[in-house]
Amino acid sequence: MLKVGIIGASGYSGQELLRLLLVHPAVEIAYLAANQYAGKKVSWLYPNLAGIYDLPYSSFDLKTALGKCDLLFVALPHGKPMEVIPSLLDGKHKIIDLSGDFRLVNADEYKQWYGFEHSSSHLLGQAVYGLTEINREEIQKAGFVANPGCYPTGIILGLAPLLAERLIINEEIVVDSLTGVSGSGRTASDDTHYCFCDENVSVYKVGGVHQHIPEMEQELTKIAGAEVKISFTPHLAPFSRGIYSTIYGKLKENVSTADLIQRCQDFYEREYFVKVLEEGVFPQVKAVAGSNFCHIGLKIDQRTGWAIIITAIDNLVKGAAGQAIQNMNLMCGFDENAGLKSIGLYP
Amino acid sequence: MLKVGIIGASGYSGQELLRLLLVHPAVEIAYLAANQYAGKKVSWLYPNLAGIYDLPYSSFDLKTALGKCDLLFVALPHGKPMEVIPSLLDGKHKIIDLSGDFRLVNADEYKQWYGFEHSSSHLLGQAVYGLTEINREEIQKAGFVANPGCYPTGIILGLAPLLAERLIINEEIVVDSLTGVSGSGRTASDDTHYCFCDENVSVYKVGGVHQHIPEMEQELTKIAGAEVKISFTPHLAPFSRGIYSTIYGKLKENVSTADLIQRCQDFYEREYFVKVLEEGVFPQVKAVAGSNFCHIGLKIDQRTGWAIIITAIDNLVKGAAGQAIQNMNLMCGFDENAGLKSIGLYP
Amino acid sequence: MLKVGIIGASGYSGQELLRLLLVHPAVEIAYLAANQYAGKKVSWLYPNLAGIYDLPYSSFDLKTALGKCDLLFVALPHGKPMEVIPSLLDGKHKIIDLSGDFRLVNADEYKQWYGFEHSSSHLLGQAVYGLTEINREEIQKAGFVANPGCYPTGIILGLAPLLAERLIINEEIVVDSLTGVSGSGRTASDDTHYCFCDENVSVYKVGGVHQHIPEMEQELTKIAGAEVKISFTPHLAPFSRGIYSTIYGKLKENVSTADLIQRCQDFYEREYFVKVLEEGVFPQVKAVAGSNFCHIGLKIDQRTGWAIIITAIDNLVKGAAGQAIQNMNLMCGFDENAGLKSIGLYP
Amino acid sequence: MLKVGIIGASGYSGQELLRLLLVHPAVEIAYLAANQYAGKKVSWLYPNLAGIYDLPYSSFDLKTALGKCDLLFVALPHGKPMEVIPSLLDGKHKIIDLSGDFRLVNADEYKQWYGFEHSSSHLLGQAVYGLTEINREEIQKAGFVANPGCYPTGIILGLAPLLAERLIINEEIVVDSLTGVSGSGRTASDDTHYCFCDENVSVYKVGGVHQHIPEMEQELTKIAGAEVKISFTPHLAPFSRGIYSTIYGKLKENVSTADLIQRCQDFYEREYFVKVLEEGVFPQVKAVAGSNFCHIGLKIDQRTGWAIIITAIDNLVKGAAGQAIQNMNLMCGFDENAGLKSIGLYP
Repeated sequence: MLKVGIIGASGYSGQELLRLLLVHPAVEIAYLAANQYAGKKVSWLYPNLAGIYDLPYSSFDLKTALGKCDLLFVALPHGKPMEVIPSLLDGKHKIIDLSGDFRLVNADEYKQWYGFEHSSSHLLGQAVYGLTEINREEIQKAGFVANPGCYPTGIILGLAPLLAERLIINEEIVVDSLTGVSGSGRTASDDTHYCFCDENVSVYKVGGVHQHIPEMEQELTKIAGAEVKISFTPHLAPFSRGIYSTIYGKLKENVSTADLIQRCQDFYEREYFVKVLEEGVFPQVKAVAGSNFCHIGLKIDQRTGWAIIITAIDNLVKGAAGQAIQNMNLMCGFDENAGLKSIGLYP
Repeated sequence: MLKVGIIGASGYSGQELLRLLLVHPAVEIAYLAANQYAGKKVSWLYPNLAGIYDLPYSSFDLKTALGKCDLLFVALPHGKPMEVIPSLLDGKHKIIDLSGDFRLVNADEYKQWYGFEHSSSHLLGQAVYGLTEINREEIQKAGFVANPGCYPTGIILGLAPLLAERLIINEEIVVDSLTGVSGSGRTASDDTHYCFCDENVSVYKVGGVHQHIPEMEQELTKIAGAEVKISFTPHLAPFSRGIYSTIYGKLKENVSTADLIQRCQDFYEREYFVKVLEEGVFPQVKAVAGSNFCHIGLKIDQRTGWAIIITAIDNLVKGAAGQAIQNMNLMCGFDENAGLKSIGLYP
Repeated sequence: MLKVGIIGASGYSGQELLRLLLVHPAVEIAYLAANQYAGKKVSWLYPNLAGIYDLPYSSFDLKTALGKCDLLFVALPHGKPMEVIPSLLDGKHKIIDLSGDFRLVNADEYKQWYGFEHSSSHLLGQAVYGLTEINREEIQKAGFVANPGCYPTGIILGLAPLLAERLIINEEIVVDSLTGVSGSGRTASDDTHYCFCDENVSVYKVGGVHQHIPEMEQELTKIAGAEVKISFTPHLAPFSRGIYSTIYGKLKENVSTADLIQRCQDFYEREYFVKVLEEGVFPQVKAVAGSNFCHIGLKIDQRTGWAIIITAIDNLVKGAAGQAIQNMNLMCGFDENAGLKSIGLYP
Repeated sequence: MLKVGIIGASGYSGQELLRLLLVHPAVEIAYLAANQYAGKKVSWLYPNLAGIYDLPYSSFDLKTALGKCDLLFVALPHGKPMEVIPSLLDGKHKIIDLSGDFRLVNADEYKQWYGFEHSSSHLLGQAVYGLTEINREEIQKAGFVANPGCYPTGIILGLAPLLAERLIINEEIVVDSLTGVSGSGRTASDDTHYCFCDENVSVYKVGGVHQHIPEMEQELTKIAGAEVKISFTPHLAPFSRGIYSTIYGKLKENVSTADLIQRCQDFYEREYFVKVLEEGVFPQVKAVAGSNFCHIGLKIDQRTGWAIIITAIDNLVKGAAGQAIQNMNLMCGFDENAGLKSIGLYP
């Protein structure tokens, strides 16, 4: 059994890792650090674990973490991993970071988009960007993976085939996304109050300022072979889990919906977790909730020349913990879908 | 007291008319027709009216309707009003139709977008399009008003200032909208099942096929003075009331967010029901729920040159019954906001 | 115009007072105190007021409050009003307190149920308990009203007819209630996090420890003419507004459902805001949301001898702000339903 | 691999069986019958299966069903299984019926509670009542299991320890339950319309008329060794999955909460799927959603002498498909939790 630890285990991503890893056939939970709740039973914070996992969280201790584990998931808030991870990278441990701290290659972008000076900029570029379907081979060989953001996962998977095939104009891309409230994290705030979110939709970080933009542009530019620019608008919507993105790409030349779908199906032909839906069928948030699948639906608006690509994932699974485990599976030689076979809860 | 009747009173728009008109200071409910529920108490179908309005629905009868009422709201499904309204237009009765049957001027568009041959095409163009803030003067003089669709209300109000001021390119407009489930009507169907809508978002009529598109383009073209084309994608979202639209308009030339907001505020300066929000504040569905207000927020994405306009209304109030009453108020010389002063329920 | 002020205006009850009072025909908002948000625009916190009420909150100042207002609503958290209200009771101002601080007559009960020593125990018993339908005459003459709690409002209204008519055993009463999340207040906490409340129900203060129990027993004992004891269990349910109570009262002797309903209808015969539903119809949370109505439905379980009484109110309206305004109307000689005629939003 | 079939595969219980069985390590889906959707792809109706199970439903054919399968789940609406199952009971096939048709022993009760004459009353009493934790030994040997109703599962599990230990009065039991909307089934109706369920709670079958009452009383009477009577009130609540029951049992004599919990923990000591929570912790719907667990929390109301027992299950899993699979596992000698290890989705 692989011994795994989670640093930052009390947040939603950390908890989702735990929920999934507890039923993974090849791993053993060896370490759970959560300074804020150290000493508290995990099942006190997450009652779904009552009678299943009643041990307490630990406070983070570097030696213990390294001593007990073969692989460490880092599920800390942005800005913390860059302080912790340099000490974890000892060449013996595999590290999967779920934050944005090591996704961007260019240190300047951290200043611009995250608003902080990167304290470990010498390590930028060393992590493999863990969008499994795009970078599988590098991930298989990697010791250090920067797991993608929830928005980028769904959006890059949706755009990749069209950009790879040069079907749309790189700088005429509009993305309108909805996130479930779990995307805002476990910490109580005005923005996660039930009475604010319920029966409501609200936009945030409007006008091209969300920190996931450079990550998407960086990766999409690689795929397109030329600079990609997107206008991205995220909204908070009244459901707990899910990222649902409607992506508008201006077509270079006319293409039929059927043809577009065929090319996307070919692109993801061998993928287990990416499902390109047949014509006339479109993704729904609920169809992927609780699962590691990404659904993609496509349609051409012939009147206006836009390709409309809709993608849905569970932000905590394919958008975070599930993809991290998918990456772990590859890094450790397990079946890629080990522990990740659950089908979305529907209804 | 003005004697009003509602034809098609058991649907959501009809019911919302009743709910609002029962507390309107200058009208009296004289007639409620709903063939499907004729003889049933209104409060049996709508328990919010228990002890307030316990009379039954009638089956529709032309003579009774005309005999009892001064003004008639027609809240029938698309395709029915074109059969009923010709008999109502006797020059003595004011008629407000909430369907799409008399919104379009061109009969061919009914074939294309609604899929039916218009049976009263000689009357097309005779109704005033009842978007109050745009057509107030005509409405004041009108005897026959075609009340706008829910999507067009919010979207036209959002785009009007920018098109009137020639700030954006007429054919580079993308609109991504969310509707609450009440927009799907009262009839039970797979698409209105709680377990389908809850924790879910799903798209429908993707790719430029929604019947509200020609209505929006027709009215926006008048405002812009040149042909307007929009790519419109509607999604069903998990809340009961509300239409929330994110509108992307490609700027002709650079303009600041502050300047854009100022121009919109000037455009709606004298309007009671349209609120252009200050910079950094954006509409929320919940802020307008239960009210006749339309909120508009704006931001420029400087990196990509898109103006982002977000609007929110209650689909049953400003998007249907409330605006119909606003129009009635104008047509009858009442205060424009009579019976419509309720403020959105928040929280 | 009556000049009114709200002390504690930023909480949900304070805000609901403001929302309703802004469209009340006979009052003028003269003062809004909210120390935590002093200087902030009200509409920044409550966006439903954008363009309607954009003035800032004040910090509380006794002289200003008394100088500007004829009547003051105190909407502070439990424990604070007992410090503030003694200074407001100058014989010239009418005071309506929405907290529990002056509802109980016996100072010891504050220790037992609220966990604090009452600092103004000399004033206990001086406020009229503001359950309008029960104490209308005293309220009309009152200068100081203790507005009932949200749970007690619905539960006392449901039980009053049965206890007044001696139909049920005073000490065999079980009450199972659901509250919407707004009942937990505006402050963000783990218990109001969307992801905790959504798709969930959870119990709290189980086993006869909720502070509304003594208030209910005190008032019901007066009505019954003998000691009443209830077993009360409150649950948090996934909706924003509403209190829904299922009340089980053990019948002293057999009575038919029809007879029971008739007696309740007689009891509330002249009441505008209490609707006893006809046989076979039961309250729904949504039917009263946004309104000041209380719906009551009844059924006898003949197999087991329990009377089942179900009541629903909007916790922020009839359970707080609405009833406070209803009391203000009586205290000031206005129509009892002035400003309170809105019908529940349904759908 | 065990070859299993589902008759009535398009309903929610049938679909949940499929969702779970597709990832069960020891079974193979051999047959899916759903007359209403015969020929339609399963994934068209249940998009969570897109790319996972795209085969069509069959129309039901007895020979095919028996020929292809070793074990058949019958997930038809009440009243249909009694017509189909006699032909399936050939002594060679194992049958698990999820309806109520074979749960009651007394044919008269079908007339009284279900309103139909039982057409296969000679078979009543032949099925083992499949509440696994109570009847494990009989189930292990059974060829025909009547899987319990969703309400009975949670309620019997909650009451069993107290009745077995003679702690409460058999005829003084009040049960107030909430069901998620999936409990109403997949068929669209006024009662499952999103706009009816959302932000609402509503009662149904009030006053001791729900058809699950005789089932609960029959089984609880066996456990108590004397006649048990319960007053049961079910409510429809705004979540998709879950049954949440608050059970009030009048104590025969005083007992502490700690003692009560200890006795329940002892009662379920060896159970994997029943978790008796520690003192001060109570079940939540969300903690068990998507899982086969039943959570039980307990507290004594010392003031009134009621034991309060709260239980939560996922109605589609432990309340239907999950328990059916748990029974299949026992009947076939698999690990009892095979295919059922998923932990509740939380958040």
